[in-house]
Amino acid sequence: MKFGVILATTLVAALAPAAFAQEADPLPSWNGGKARQSIVDFVSKVAKEGSPDFVPAAERIATFDNDGTLWAEQPLYFQFLFAIDRVKTLAPQHPEWKDKEPFASLLKGDTQAALAGGERALLDIVMAAHAGMTTEEFEAIVKDWLAKAKHPATKRPFTEMVYSPMLELLSYLRANGFKTYIVSGGGVEFMRAFAERVYGVPPEQVIGSSGKLKFEMRDGKPVIAKQADVEFIDDKEGKPLAIQKFIGRRPIASFGNSDGDLQMLQWTAAGAGPRFCLYVHHTDAEREWAYDRKSSVGRLDKGLDEAAAKGWTVASMKDDWKRIFRFEK
Amino acid sequence: MKFGVILATTLVAALAPAAFAQEADPLPSWNGGKARQSIVDFVSKVAKEGSPDFVPAAERIATFDNDGTLWAEQPLYFQFLFAIDRVKTLAPQHPEWKDKEPFASLLKGDTQAALAGGERALLDIVMAAHAGMTTEEFEAIVKDWLAKAKHPATKRPFTEMVYSPMLELLSYLRANGFKTYIVSGGGVEFMRAFAERVYGVPPEQVIGSSGKLKFEMRDGKPVIAKQADVEFIDDKEGKPLAIQKFIGRRPIASFGNSDGDLQMLQWTAAGAGPRFCLYVHHTDAEREWAYDRKSSVGRLDKGLDEAAAKGWTVASMKDDWKRIFRFEK
Repeated sequence: MKFGVILATTLVAALAPAAFAQEADPLPSWNGGKARQSIVDFVSKVAKEGSPDFVPAAERIATFDNDGTLWAEQPLYFQFLFAIDRVKTLAPQHPEWKDKEPFASLLKGDTQAALAGGERALLDIVMAAHAGMTTEEFEAIVKDWLAKAKHPATKRPFTEMVYSPMLELLSYLRANGFKTYIVSGGGVEFMRAFAERVYGVPPEQVIGSSGKLKFEMRDGKPVIAKQADVEFIDDKEGKPLAIQKFIGRRPIASFGNSDGDLQMLQWTAAGAGPRFCLYVHHTDAEREWAYDRKSSVGRLDKGLDEAAAKGWTVASMKDDWKRIFRFEK
Repeated sequence: MKFGVILATTLVAALAPAAFAQEADPLPSWNGGKARQSIVDFVSKVAKEGSPDFVPAAERIATFDNDGTLWAEQPLYFQFLFAIDRVKTLAPQHPEWKDKEPFASLLKGDTQAALAGGERALLDIVMAAHAGMTTEEFEAIVKDWLAKAKHPATKRPFTEMVYSPMLELLSYLRANGFKTYIVSGGGVEFMRAFAERVYGVPPEQVIGSSGKLKFEMRDGKPVIAKQADVEFIDDKEGKPLAIQKFIGRRPIASFGNSDGDLQMLQWTAAGAGPRFCLYVHHTDAEREWAYDRKSSVGRLDKGLDEAAAKGWTVASMKDDWKRIFRFEK
């Protein structure tokens, strides 16, 4: 009897922290609306053994866009801001840039004129910022920039421009056996430099756009050098293709914020069994930004129609998010 | 005092199975030579907290070649045998193959003449066997073939042609916190069809050669269709590049059997901290095959020299492996 009592006491003491953790709200930055409820309903049914919608842990794959979904993307994708700073740093070694667009305008401080060349101009800037160095040198440069650079509007480090509700969502999914991936148009090596520390997503679960790489010997040691050519743009149709190539398994949940994520959500939704698709809708001009159908950055137009037609969850920043950034009062 | 005794008894009872498991030999198919010892020494030092060579679990990445390293590759890479069978099945739909090499020879049963065209002929056959179908259709076809086809020499299913010592090694590494990857010249979707069941390696940890993919709508549903063009050959320099692209972290241990794995081993060896490289050496003409410097399949020439020069482990099948296949007496 005494043994039983002691064992019972020990068990209660051992279980208490787990029970407490389970009861604590895993999504405190979310308001209690439909969006939050749809997330909790989905996770509960797929992770609960014995549920008719149970999904084995190995198949609980969740994919997240990055720019505009996990962190902000205004006034310009942060990686372009990095690339612009990098071009300025490298300018003394490239006297030819003085007469060559988009570099000439950029170096004169006229970002708008530099970007008049559209996607091509953006790519030229990004490639110039990346080419020639080894992957390890590049990682060090990105980390250094992230430690020092400040967002032009908030004056905060860029890694503080991440969304609290989405950080909680990543943790909540992982606590329920999900493997969380980033599948983003951003450069894969740029994102890997901070994804593990900031999002808890290790490098091998970060999928992104990439430039060509070259394996070569430098001073008798093998290095991998970044080349000036684009290899793959991880956007639109590129997203489901990258998912197939890198993961080889269809996600059961996907999260995006723009038309560039639509094919990823379609691919996710079209699988058999329970599926979850969510669009983050930028509706809060006060705390973040408000933009959708007509924005040049992160346009959400077709996606908004398809979400309505298919019954996907649309999380309105203004209504569904109690807190957007950690630094908010 | 009594509480202490009961607790101590409970603890002993709870720990016993773990202690027992630790003492059971994790590598029973290995003979007790230098190769085995070098593996155990490496794993012990990197996985032991407090050891000067301790490596955090997140960085314990191990990469394995497949053909000739995890399963046999004679008389021809098994995927080519699959592709040849597939071409025969598809022949009625391709009357033009009767007059077109390498298909004409293949359909006449003259494999040697068909392969006289070298790598190009092999690629044509593989691509013909893959193109047009969706990734899901392809997976079903590979699984069906693996369930029925037999190895020409042993008359065993191909998935029984896997090496017991390497299966044990995969499990041993995972039990010590390693993430095990396949990085092989084989087709990624071909390997994913059996890697999880046979090797315990999930699809997202299988990296291989790939054909181009296309995202498209069929009957209003999104599918991913395999195209006839080669996208990437995961061999030689391709291996470290694929590791960087897919994993984004340098492995601390790599395992191969041919010169096609050399750059992967070089890349692994050149990192800072403890490193482990192993070549499987095919030295057993009786139980498996014996080949190295002059073989057209799985040539191991430069790699053998570099292993000697760098002090990498070379596991001789004849001397280091007590049992090669599970079906051996």
